[in-house]
Amino acid sequence: MNLSDRYSVLFEPIVLGRKVSKNRFWATPHAIGFGSDSPGSAAGYRGMRAEGGWGVVFTEATTISPEMDKTPHRMSRLWDEGDVRNLAYVVSEIQRHGALAGIELEYNAAVGPMTEGRGLSPRNPVTTPGESSLAVPYVGGLAGLDADGLAEIKDAYVTAALRSQRAGFDLITLHCGHAASILAHFLIPYYNTRTDEYGGSLENRSRFAREVLVAVREAVGPETAVGLRLGVDTLDAPLGLGDRGIRADGDAPLFIEFMDDLVDYWDLVIGGFEWALDAQSSRTVAENFEKPWVGHLKKYTTKPVVNVGRLNSPDTMVDILTSGQCDIIGGARAGISDPFLPEKIRTGAIGNIRECIGCNFCVSRDMAHVPIACTQNATTGEEFRRGWNPEVYSRAKNHETDVLVIGAGPAGMECAMVLGKRGMRNVHLIEAADHIGGSIEWSARIPGRHEWRRLIEYREHQLGQLANVEVILNTAMSASDALDYGAGIVVVATGSHYSRDGIDPFNRLPFGLEPVFGERLFTPEQILRDRAEVGRRVVVVDSDGYFMGPGIAELLAQRGHEVTFATKGEHVGEYQRYTRELPHTLKDLRTLGVAMRTETAVTPASDNTVRLSHLDRADEIIEVDSVVLVGTRISDSGIYDDLSARRDEWESNEIAGVYQIGDSVRPHFIAEAIFSGHRLAREIDSDDPARQRPFIRERRIVGGTDADFLLTSEALRRTI
Amino acid sequence: MNLSDRYSVLFEPIVLGRKVSKNRFWATPHAIGFGSDSPGSAAGYRGMRAEGGWGVVFTEATTISPEMDKTPHRMSRLWDEGDVRNLAYVVSEIQRHGALAGIELEYNAAVGPMTEGRGLSPRNPVTTPGESSLAVPYVGGLAGLDADGLAEIKDAYVTAALRSQRAGFDLITLHCGHAASILAHFLIPYYNTRTDEYGGSLENRSRFAREVLVAVREAVGPETAVGLRLGVDTLDAPLGLGDRGIRADGDAPLFIEFMDDLVDYWDLVIGGFEWALDAQSSRTVAENFEKPWVGHLKKYTTKPVVNVGRLNSPDTMVDILTSGQCDIIGGARAGISDPFLPEKIRTGAIGNIRECIGCNFCVSRDMAHVPIACTQNATTGEEFRRGWNPEVYSRAKNHETDVLVIGAGPAGMECAMVLGKRGMRNVHLIEAADHIGGSIEWSARIPGRHEWRRLIEYREHQLGQLANVEVILNTAMSASDALDYGAGIVVVATGSHYSRDGIDPFNRLPFGLEPVFGERLFTPEQILRDRAEVGRRVVVVDSDGYFMGPGIAELLAQRGHEVTFATKGEHVGEYQRYTRELPHTLKDLRTLGVAMRTETAVTPASDNTVRLSHLDRADEIIEVDSVVLVGTRISDSGIYDDLSARRDEWESNEIAGVYQIGDSVRPHFIAEAIFSGHRLAREIDSDDPARQRPFIRERRIVGGTDADFLLTSEALRRTI
Ligand SMILES: Cc1cc2nc3c(=O)[nH]c(=O)nc-3n(C[C@H](O)[C@H](O)[C@H](O)COP(=O)(O)O)c2cc1C
Ligand SMILES: Cc1cc2nc3c(=O)[nH]c(=O)nc-3n(C[C@H](O)[C@H](O)[C@H](O)COP(=O)(O)O)c2cc1C
Ligand SMILES: Nc1ncnc2c1ncn2[C@@H]1O[C@H](COP(=O)(O)OP(=O)(O)O)[C@@H](O)[C@H]1O
Ligand SMILES: Nc1ncnc2c1ncn2[C@@H]1O[C@H](COP(=O)(O)OP(=O)(O)O)[C@@H](O)[C@H]1O
Ligand code: SF4
Ligand code: SF4
Repeated sequence: MNLSDRYSVLFEPIVLGRKVSKNRFWATPHAIGFGSDSPGSAAGYRGMRAEGGWGVVFTEATTISPEMDKTPHRMSRLWDEGDVRNLAYVVSEIQRHGALAGIELEYNAAVGPMTEGRGLSPRNPVTTPGESSLAVPYVGGLAGLDADGLAEIKDAYVTAALRSQRAGFDLITLHCGHAASILAHFLIPYYNTRTDEYGGSLENRSRFAREVLVAVREAVGPETAVGLRLGVDTLDAPLGLGDRGIRADGDAPLFIEFMDDLVDYWDLVIGGFEWALDAQSSRTVAENFEKPWVGHLKKYTTKPVVNVGRLNSPDTMVDILTSGQCDIIGGARAGISDPFLPEKIRTGAIGNIRECIGCNFCVSRDMAHVPIACTQNATTGEEFRRGWNPEVYSRAKNHETDVLVIGAGPAGMECAMVLGKRGMRNVHLIEAADHIGGSIEWSARIPGRHEWRRLIEYREHQLGQLANVEVILNTAMSASDALDYGAGIVVVATGSHYSRDGIDPFNRLPFGLEPVFGERLFTPEQILRDRAEVGRRVVVVDSDGYFMGPGIAELLAQRGHEVTFATKGEHVGEYQRYTRELPHTLKDLRTLGVAMRTETAVTPASDNTVRLSHLDRADEIIEVDSVVLVGTRISDSGIYDDLSARRDEWESNEIAGVYQIGDSVRPHFIAEAIFSGHRLAREIDSDDPARQRPFIRERRIVGGTDADFLLTSEALRRTI
Repeated sequence: MNLSDRYSVLFEPIVLGRKVSKNRFWATPHAIGFGSDSPGSAAGYRGMRAEGGWGVVFTEATTISPEMDKTPHRMSRLWDEGDVRNLAYVVSEIQRHGALAGIELEYNAAVGPMTEGRGLSPRNPVTTPGESSLAVPYVGGLAGLDADGLAEIKDAYVTAALRSQRAGFDLITLHCGHAASILAHFLIPYYNTRTDEYGGSLENRSRFAREVLVAVREAVGPETAVGLRLGVDTLDAPLGLGDRGIRADGDAPLFIEFMDDLVDYWDLVIGGFEWALDAQSSRTVAENFEKPWVGHLKKYTTKPVVNVGRLNSPDTMVDILTSGQCDIIGGARAGISDPFLPEKIRTGAIGNIRECIGCNFCVSRDMAHVPIACTQNATTGEEFRRGWNPEVYSRAKNHETDVLVIGAGPAGMECAMVLGKRGMRNVHLIEAADHIGGSIEWSARIPGRHEWRRLIEYREHQLGQLANVEVILNTAMSASDALDYGAGIVVVATGSHYSRDGIDPFNRLPFGLEPVFGERLFTPEQILRDRAEVGRRVVVVDSDGYFMGPGIAELLAQRGHEVTFATKGEHVGEYQRYTRELPHTLKDLRTLGVAMRTETAVTPASDNTVRLSHLDRADEIIEVDSVVLVGTRISDSGIYDDLSARRDEWESNEIAGVYQIGDSVRPHFIAEAIFSGHRLAREIDSDDPARQRPFIRERRIVGGTDADFLLTSEALRRTI
């Protein structure tokens, strides 16, 4: 069997109502922070997925009424003619590349905390206090629905469906998953406590979804395919809804049978209000993790079924289809990370797939209400605003120049790779250690982070294919070495390290632990990279606020240490709230018996005790054998600083430019280190590569026309 | 002395460099959530303040470089030509009404948590871990500044100043207050630990501000006035910066003397990183509260001085000027609440001033990254998007109709007032109680909330002036009464009440306290309105999440009760984080000895004990004599529901419409109740007053032109 036969099942067309998808790849609805208000950015992003071969490309959850408004979240909207115009443009970009365009309609009153449409009343199956992602019940109550109200919401669905059709969408999904829509709120007993014909039995709880679906179908006619995205299991409490939710072996099959005549396809997911249970990170779940809930449901329907859940590898995809688990491979993150996944499979370029590491940085951007970004794929979200295609690299104008890249962490690896693809004559990537990868190499030793190694593996493979790039290990460079090297461009990517004392960001004073604990204080590098032995009783002091502190606490607890985790922050690993990993982390740390103290200052009380202070509780003094400080990261910018100081020697050494990227400029997310390497390489032949070129900012411009939203536009001009 | 003499000092012109303000009213920079990306909304808002008579109208803190980007906060930007075009439009709207237009330039790297301009490095006096309003240090480190870097930031200031000038601004303020700008970061020892000529002595710490100011002045020339907004005191720790900050009797006067030759005016404020210390609510501060810090500083300068700090009343303003405290009355909130404050003083219409109650709802909108709104003034932020002017009301097309408004809470009062101004033949506002004001009347009894009574007083005064509006007290209406009343339109504004059991928004189950505690359980109305006596040991259980729960805890503790406050929320009165009242509330509750338990469930343990459960701590059982449940608010929509059910009787009673407003639809913020009454009255003569008219949404529209941003535009069309 040759490659193409092996994967050919993935490229069989499939019928969806009267539409036909050319293959089995279905980019599921996912929010990217551009909504319908940044039509170019949205079109650039979605169009790239279509170009990459996805047969079906959905946009994202789209609010059908100003009553349901997640401002400041920049959500897609279908409220008026302006939205129709903007989405029509997105659709045209998707269809231009031969894909079907889909939209997901939603009315999710429960989480509209800050409505832009003031004076409107979000409505709900029953009158109830509002929820919100902020856990601020004070968002206001939700009004219940009487018969008039039900008719109005149904109308809103119909109107939005007609608008979708006018915008050109081929597929309309009504959202009934993630407890993120009134259809799901009617279905789920947790939300629906009505006692009339819309509450109680499954048939009653399904009634509204049925009515809406009937009305929408009738309105749009047979040409547009209509389906449901169904949350088949709302999972166990406390994160899920427990007994008051929907179960994959309970209501879900009954609902599917009951509604099957009305849909052209089913898109099945898991999870409730905590929607990221459907988009869990690699910390908690592996490929095809939703199978236990969705795997048996295809038998209840005669319509095509989409599954999702970290479906990354082509072989697994084939197994899923051939085993009859489902008909269509759904994916959000696989395509965020590699829009060209289908094309790479089709053309036998599997080794070139930029596989998602499951870090959920993309999810964090959504939660933070900012445009999407991806750790693996620096071009995600930049398709329109910077004109980047992840597979297309122009030959650099200065391609006859040799480039020296110092340091093979994420920034250096990415930069060297892109420089290679841009055809620079010679790129030397020089690394002091005996392997590439930099800080990822040891960070990935944290429990649940081993998939992060793919950041290295993908780049290692790419670099290996580039004849003009040479990787040189075990070589620590100095500024003098760099000056003498003979390269016309020098890129410094020397990274950063955690300091042993450093500055506490909460008060900008030294932590004051090192002077007391000396050798008994450890940095993350010592624990993970150097595998240092720490004592039995450990306090992990975290001001870093993401995965590192909790990860080390978890590792040490797994090894049998008695661990206290303390931070001045409000939460354990604050940023994990955005990646939606926090509840899982807390659960795991609790299970391991790690004592957790938030809003807590740690100061030495004696040479083997620390004081834990919280404003509203009595101080605790605990004995510790070792302290782990996950504190300030310090940029290793020495080489760059030396080279800058010796600028007068550049010319004689024929050096045109020295640039600095990644954590050596500022310690930041891995995604930002990679981005910074990518950006520099993309602009290595600009007038001043040290300064970014402007990107397109989509907003209303007074007197503006479409010409203002081109990369060459007058509006972008930055000079006076 | 007649009225105009008394206040004439407020209307003396004042020279600012080569510019002259026609009077002493200065709308200080304040962010309104439209930034420079919604030019119409911004122009509408600012222009209204100019129309209302402010001699100087500032826009808001404006970022000078994509390195300093507060996305998702919609901040004003001066990054490119598109911004210049948008701000030029805002300027023209300000100047059209005879005011000077001002801009405030800022580079505040420390709080740029989610930069839209990826790959850029926010810079800081010293290399340091980033801070952010989220307390997520993981926002990435801040890079320090060498000589090149300093030159670049200076250039960015100059460029932004030149752009400001091209946009037409008359006044340019460099922000050096609120620890919100690199100029302040250099000045304040907490942030600046440099050891070179930019750190150490005051002269050194001022050097960068001086260099920037010199460069900006040189670039813009003499025609544009340039000033500084200076934070003169960063206040005491822990909220302020304590010994490492700037003091009004220390560095501040020296700095003023040192820089005085370079500025055309001084705008003096207090507070540090916690900028709302300069915009404290009426819970903690009274009129002219900044005087202790700013009051003595005028003597150090020869230039005009602006002061701020809840400067609301005309008499105080006169005193401030005549006593020599300062030369110009600065105000943000006074003008948010009443843009026409100066005109009302000038024309002797002082009784009509819509005085700010100091609730900081406006601040909360800023903190939540949504467009501005104001409790007192429903038209705030709606100038452009709905075309509302707070002083201009068109005669309703159906003005020959009589209107019955049932319930004189905030919603009913506002609605009746606006209906009156729109010239409805007769408006009867009927109230069951012996006073108007509804829930505000008793909410204002909470410690620190008495100024909220102005919501009532202002409307009472307005209603008194309207011959066509009659207020009828002590009259409880039924649906039958309403049908018989003889009004052509009925508006139901009957409000809501706190329930004795209700639904816990955190699990959508009954609280389960009432069945056990019975008469020993109290609602907020019982405590505040009915002045019920509670036992010595009280637990306040809060799921409301704003001022009510903590307020009652405070009140009872003041009265000597032993109080425990418990909430499942993450914070005490969650929403007070947005109004920036939370730190003050916590401090006060701590001082009063209130035990505070967050993320804590309260369940009955016996008939006189409750169990407090927190996932990471051992359960506590405490004895209680009384329980106060600040739980679910239930809409009192009975009359509306009855009237709806009896729709067939409307015609015979010549009733054209029955509408519902305020908390009787959904319990929400006071601001939203008022808005909903205002909105209905503004649209009482529309085709369907029950449904809002569309508002203008400024964003890029594909193929769009300025015509798409009119209230009559095609883009706004909502039909299919
Ligand atoms: C950034 C992001 C945004 C998402 N937004 C939506 C959405 O708007 N509507 C929706 O139904 N699902 C949304 N999802 C869920 C995905 O469609 C998908 O079901 C889930 O991520 C599991 O698939 P995956 O493992 O391939 O990512 C989102 C997922 C991600 C990662
Ligand atoms: C909603 C709001 C936003 C503000 N934004 C800014 C700002 O962008 N720049 C600034 O210097 N001050 C800002 N301020 C502070 C005000 O300019 C003013 O100094 C402060 O509110 C005290 O004046 P007041 O009591 O008249 O409101 C803001 C104040 C408010 C209420
Ligand atoms: N002088 C040097 N010569 C060669 N490699 C270096 C030198 N200094 C640091 N490095 C390497 O640079 C890499 C930086 O990686 P990392 O810290 O992950 O930074 P980033 O995230 O910016 O890529 C490490 O692998 C480190 O060994
Ligand atoms: N049947 C009724 N007749 C007259 N007044 C009523 C009636 N029911 C409620 N009210 C009054 O309506 C007002 C509602 O005020 P409030 O609860 O503050 O609501 P909102 O915030 O919506 O204005 C109260 O003053 C209440 O006494
Ligand atoms: S950000 Fe992480 S989880 Fe999201 S698509 Fe990229 S690699 Fe995958
Ligand atoms: S929201 Fe409150 S504090 Fe702000 S201006 Fe209005 S009344 Fe004043």
